Amino acid sequence: MSNDIVLTGIKPTGKVHLGNYIGAIKPALQIAGASDCTSLYFIADYHGLNSIQNRDEFRDLSYSIAATWLALGLNPDRVIFYRQSDVPEIFELCWILACLTSKGLMNRAHVYKAIQDQNEQLGVDADTGVNMGLFTYPILMAADILLFQSDKVPVGKDQIQHVEIARDIAESFNRVYGDTFKLPDYIVDESTAVIPGLDGRKMSKSYNNTIPLFETAENLKKLISKIKTDSTLPQEPKDPETSNIFLLYKEFATPTQVQELRDKYLSGISWGEAKHELFQVVNAALEEPRKKYYDLMAEPEQIDTILSEGARKARALAGPLLKKVKSRIGRYA
Amino acid sequence: MSNDIVLTGIKPTGKVHLGNYIGAIKPALQIAGASDCTSLYFIADYHGLNSIQNRDEFRDLSYSIAATWLALGLNPDRVIFYRQSDVPEIFELCWILACLTSKGLMNRAHVYKAIQDQNEQLGVDADTGVNMGLFTYPILMAADILLFQSDKVPVGKDQIQHVEIARDIAESFNRVYGDTFKLPDYIVDESTAVIPGLDGRKMSKSYNNTIPLFETAENLKKLISKIKTDSTLPQEPKDPETSNIFLLYKEFATPTQVQELRDKYLSGISWGEAKHELFQVVNAALEEPRKKYYDLMAEPEQIDTILSEGARKARALAGPLLKKVKSRIGRYA
Repeated sequence: MSNDIVLTGIKPTGKVHLGNYIGAIKPALQIAGASDCTSLYFIADYHGLNSIQNRDEFRDLSYSIAATWLALGLNPDRVIFYRQSDVPEIFELCWILACLTSKGLMNRAHVYKAIQDQNEQLGVDADTGVNMGLFTYPILMAADILLFQSDKVPVGKDQIQHVEIARDIAESFNRVYGDTFKLPDYIVDESTAVIPGLDGRKMSKSYNNTIPLFETAENLKKLISKIKTDSTLPQEPKDPETSNIFLLYKEFATPTQVQELRDKYLSGISWGEAKHELFQVVNAALEEPRKKYYDLMAEPEQIDTILSEGARKARALAGPLLKKVKSRIGRYA
Repeated sequence: MSNDIVLTGIKPTGKVHLGNYIGAIKPALQIAGASDCTSLYFIADYHGLNSIQNRDEFRDLSYSIAATWLALGLNPDRVIFYRQSDVPEIFELCWILACLTSKGLMNRAHVYKAIQDQNEQLGVDADTGVNMGLFTYPILMAADILLFQSDKVPVGKDQIQHVEIARDIAESFNRVYGDTFKLPDYIVDESTAVIPGLDGRKMSKSYNNTIPLFETAENLKKLISKIKTDSTLPQEPKDPETSNIFLLYKEFATPTQVQELRDKYLSGISWGEAKHELFQVVNAALEEPRKKYYDLMAEPEQIDTILSEGARKARALAGPLLKKVKSRIGRYA
C-alpha cells in the first residue's frame, strides 16, 4: 500500500466497548502505524447529526470518540486526524457531487431501503422518520472519500456499498468533466473474529452485553466476572478454543501468556482464575489508555488543538482539489 | 420594510430578454434602490449545476447574468452582490439543514413532482433523469435564505413553495435547538403584467419569441419590426390597451411620451411608426446598459473583483450565524 492514501471515518457513537476496539479500532490503528501510506482519520460528526439531535450528546460523543482514538495510540503527528465539521470543502463538494448523482442510486442504498421495508411492514408511509441527512449521506461519504483522492477505505462489510457509491459518483463526474477523481477501493478485514459479549452472543450495545473500554479497574473486574461460563468443575480440563474468556485473552496477551493459559485450560483451571487472568491482561493493556482518555476528556481544549491542526493539514490537501473540481465545472473565468 | 434583510437569488439562465427585465429584474432593482433595508443579491450558480453540466456554458452564464444585473444598474456599493459558490458557509448549513428536513417534504416539492408525473406518463421509472441536486435543491435554497436571516424574499409565484419550505425547515431547527432562525416571508409582485413576445404570446424562450436585452441597435430594430400586428390601416384609430407595442412602450417611456403615443393611437398611427417609436425608447433605455454589459464581459476580472468583494461582505454576515448554528447543535465544547 505504499504511497496510498488511506481514509478512515470514525462515527461518533456511544461508549466504545472491547468489541469495537478489537474488531475495528485495533486493526485501523495497525494500518495507521504501518508503512509509508498517508493515513487520514476523521471524526464523522456531521454524519452523526442524522440521528443525534441533542446538543450535549452530539458534543460529548464527538469529544469522547476523539479522545478514545488518541488514548488508544492514534498518533496525530503520523496521521492526519481531523473533525469533518472543520473542513468546509467537504460540504461544498457534497453539493457538487449531488448534482452528478442520480436519485435512483440513493433509492437503492441499503440503509434507506431497510428503513423503507420496515415502514412498509408497519403499514406506514415508506419515508416515515427519514430525514434528508439520512437519505443523502452516501453523497457526503463520497465527498469525504473523493476530496482526498483516497485509494483505500477500510470498512466493515456493511459499509462496502458506500465505497461503491463513491466510485459510481466519481465515475459520473469523470465521465462528464474528464478524469478528475481517483476511484477508491474498499478494504474489508475478513479475518476479524466475532467478539463475544458477557452472555456469549456478539458483543453489542443492542444486546446490552458489552464491556466498555474505559471502565475503572474495579468495574472492569466486576464485568469480567459476569462473563457466562459453563458448569465444568474447577479442576476439569477445559477447551480453550470454545471459551469466550480465552478468546478475549488472546487479543490482549503476549504469545507466551497465551500459551501458558492454554496449558492451564488443558490441565484444569477454575473459571474464576481464568477470569482473573483475563482481567489482568485487559487491565494492563487499558490502564494507560484509560488514564489518557480521562485526562483528555478533562481538558477538551487539548482535543480541539489536535483536531484543529489535523484540519489545517486536511484542508491543505482538500483546497487544491476542490479548486480543480470547480475549475472543471466552469467556476472560473 | 425598513431594516429588513431582503434576499434575491438570480439563477444563471441563457440570454436575458425584455420579458425577464420588465417582469423580474426591474422590480428587483427597485427594491434594491429603495430605502434602508439590507439587500442581498446572489448569483445562484450552484443551483444551475443541476442542469448545466458543461464547463463553458456554466462559466459564461454566470458571468453573463452578473454582467447583466450590473449593467442594468445594480449598485454593488449599496447592496451585497455575491456568487453563491464563493460562500462555503451555505453548503455546510445546507448539510445541517438536510438533517432537520423530512424526506416527505422533498417528495412534495412541485418541481420534483412535476418531473415524476411526466415520467409516469411516459411509462418510465418516476425518478428517471432526476439527479440529487434537483431533488435536494429546496434545502440549498433554505440555506441560501436562512444563513442571512432574511426577512423577505421576492419571488415569482412558482417560487412561493421554496420560501415555504425554508420556513418549514427553519421551524424544524428552531423546535429542536431553540429559536435560531428568522422565519422568512416571500414577496410576490402581483402587479407584474405579462410581457408579450413577438407573436403576442407571453415572451418566453420556449416560444422562441423573445427580444434579447443586449442586441445591437440594428438587431433590436429588426426584432421590433417583427412584432405581430393586425391589419388595421395606417390612418385608422387604434386601441392602445390591446396593442402589444403600446404595452412594451409603456415600460420604457416617460408618462408624457406615453400620453403622446396614446393620442397618436387614437387619432391613427401606422404600425411601422408605432414600432419606430418603441424602438426609440427601448434603444435609448438600453444603450448604456448594453455598452456596460459588453465592457464587463470583455473583462470578466472586473466581475470577479465585484463579486469577491460581495462575498467578503456576505461571509462576514454568514460566519457568525453559522457559528451560532454549530454551537446550537453541539459542535463546540
